[in-house]
Amino acid sequence: PNDVREYDNYFSRTLLDRKSDKRTDSKWLNAKQNHPATVYILFSSLSPLVTLGRGEDSSQQPEVRLCRLCHEGVKEYMSQTEDVTLIFLGVELQLATLNGGVLKEDEDDGLVAWFALSIDDTFAEQFKKKHEDSYFLHPPMPALLQLPEKEAGVVAQARSVLAWHSRYQFCPTCGSATKIEEGGYKKTCLKEDCPSLQGVHNTSYPRVDPVVIMQVLHPDGNQCLLGRQKRFPPGMFTCLAGFVEPGETIEDAVRREVEEESGVKIGHVQYVSCQPWPMPSSLMIGCLAVAVSTEIRVDKNEIEDARWFTREQVVDVLIKGNHHSFFVPPSRAIAHQLIKHWIGMNANL
Amino acid sequence: PNDVREYDNYFSRTLLDRKSDKRTDSKWLNAKQNHPATVYILFSSLSPLVTLGRGEDSSQQPEVRLCRLCHEGVKEYMSQTEDVTLIFLGVELQLATLNGGVLKEDEDDGLVAWFALSIDDTFAEQFKKKHEDSYFLHPPMPALLQLPEKEAGVVAQARSVLAWHSRYQFCPTCGSATKIEEGGYKKTCLKEDCPSLQGVHNTSYPRVDPVVIMQVLHPDGNQCLLGRQKRFPPGMFTCLAGFVEPGETIEDAVRREVEEESGVKIGHVQYVSCQPWPMPSSLMIGCLAVAVSTEIRVDKNEIEDARWFTREQVVDVLIKGNHHSFFVPPSRAIAHQLIKHWIGMNANL
Ligand SMILES: Nc1ncnc2c1ncn2[C@@H]1O[C@H](COP(=O)(O)O)[C@@H](O)[C@H]1O
Ligand SMILES: Nc1ncnc2c1ncn2[C@@H]1O[C@H](COP(=O)(O)O)[C@@H](O)[C@H]1O
Repeated sequence: PNDVREYDNYFSRTLLDRKSDKRTDSKWLNAKQNHPATVYILFSSLSPLVTLGRGEDSSQQPEVRLCRLCHEGVKEYMSQTEDVTLIFLGVELQLATLNGGVLKEDEDDGLVAWFALSIDDTFAEQFKKKHEDSYFLHPPMPALLQLPEKEAGVVAQARSVLAWHSRYQFCPTCGSATKIEEGGYKKTCLKEDCPSLQGVHNTSYPRVDPVVIMQVLHPDGNQCLLGRQKRFPPGMFTCLAGFVEPGETIEDAVRREVEEESGVKIGHVQYVSCQPWPMPSSLMIGCLAVAVSTEIRVDKNEIEDARWFTREQVVDVLIKGNHHSFFVPPSRAIAHQLIKHWIGMNANL
Repeated sequence: PNDVREYDNYFSRTLLDRKSDKRTDSKWLNAKQNHPATVYILFSSLSPLVTLGRGEDSSQQPEVRLCRLCHEGVKEYMSQTEDVTLIFLGVELQLATLNGGVLKEDEDDGLVAWFALSIDDTFAEQFKKKHEDSYFLHPPMPALLQLPEKEAGVVAQARSVLAWHSRYQFCPTCGSATKIEEGGYKKTCLKEDCPSLQGVHNTSYPRVDPVVIMQVLHPDGNQCLLGRQKRFPPGMFTCLAGFVEPGETIEDAVRREVEEESGVKIGHVQYVSCQPWPMPSSLMIGCLAVAVSTEIRVDKNEIEDARWFTREQVVDVLIKGNHHSFFVPPSRAIAHQLIKHWIGMNANL
């Protein structure tokens, strides 16, 4: 449990094989949409529909679970209205391998497809009235971190793509309307002579924003630098983070962000693990960064406070659960895992 | 030289401190634009203006160099026309530290600012007529790989941001026109009630597309998997690569892409190093990936060929320079460095 790699894929130990080759197979996609075994997950305003279930161990607290709906349950919302977006997420992994054989034309391949369906507010209200045991997870964070690991991966994928559709409705190159293609993974400009239609351009594909997040070690090796933003709950401190800029390496972004936010200079940087963060569509790249200076000068525009915390203080909070002085994000957040990785590194607890 | 880390920052061992805090300081930016010490680099159709210079050692081949212009040399192109884009790149690193003291109001801080200026075709023609020793580097690849390391970093930054402006002219949320702000790092929608103006949205910021590129090792440890696309020069093979998708970790993207393109299944994945790739604005994340299967089934839609190459074959090409069987990308490309990293790893050459 001290190895962060065991946790590094919280948002990605997914149930699904994305089967991206099927995105262009509209016949297959259509057949799957109407198939009784197909699973639909529902979103309203980028929040997934969930319910409270019991964990495997029935003595546990009720657990937030994704609602898995079938075509029967959603088809009335899949009408022609404009405010419905459908994303093909993939097929269930377990079954994918059972059906490797060659199939006859039109024979069912047995693959269980998953789709994400985004509905508008009116439909969402209607739906909630009919299904009182389920609700849309609002606001998504930090509640999304309570979903079972595998479901969180599916939600990260679906929410990122849906967020892209909701913000990228128009062609950035010419300002015209666009249409959704390839199971939700492509947006094509509707203006015939738009330059975005000549060749391959990133304007047509979902955006993923790389972010560096780093556990900064004091040169003495026994303290780490944690900071807080004004909007955080009182007492919460976490790893510094920031967007990777164009033309920058991961390592340079770590050095720049730490110096900008805290004035601390960084030498060696080491990649540890990463986590997709669907708010709206980031890839959090987790690193260890060794400081070569110690004086803190906080940039008040970016963060509210940054301090060196001793290993003992961090162990107190993380292992012993003493939250009176400060606390860190929950265990499924990559910041938590980076901090935990560090206190596990030298075993003198 | 066997440690890829020595090479990992080809596009980023930059001359410049980005000084992002100055992007919102329009008074400072204006003063620097007119300052005689300020350096301008020129672009036309996303290609930088270069000249042939001599390396440090005058016996060497002439080397491609960025043209560094001053305000006098470019001001006639900085008129009010719409087709001129100006990006603040940063200040020269060496001087940045000399001037840490407190300055009086309006005192020159001594920082040497760099800007990238993109001009339209007519201006570019005019410019070339006046300066016969310089030319725009067309096409940018692979020629960009010939620039001195530090200049390549500046070009990567400038070209990525300029490419973003050229393709993202309209607000993707509402389709309206946008204006450039913050030294070129922000685009703001001009429609007053656009939702993109409420809160922070990635639609306003430059795009960086994370890409995984991986050296795939055969389970026997003595072969690696290289592939080629149809559009490559005949005989060239390189590492497999692909875009990270929304909701995906780096490690999962490596596994998915290798399996999609070649049918080979991957177990352990290890980050090695990264490189910004300004075509138009990718972050190439270089990994080692250990295969757990060996049968190759090439997806002809994605690549043309993929093969296992033995360590001896690769050493022959990389170290001995025998290019009769196949060749790999030039030494400054991250693929080259990943391959070199691998043959350096076990020292039995
Ligand atoms: N951001 C992106 N920019 C360009 N192509 C993308 C992007 N994301 C996914 N793709 C896919 O990757 C293919 C191009 O990959 P490549 O040939 O490696 O440049 C496109 O045809 C798309 O299907
Ligand atoms: N892709 C992006 N999305 C949102 N903010 C960005 C992006 N790239 C750079 N930024 C900057 O990062 C700030 C938000 O960072 P944060 O508070 O960590 O979410 C914004 O105010 C922008 O200045």
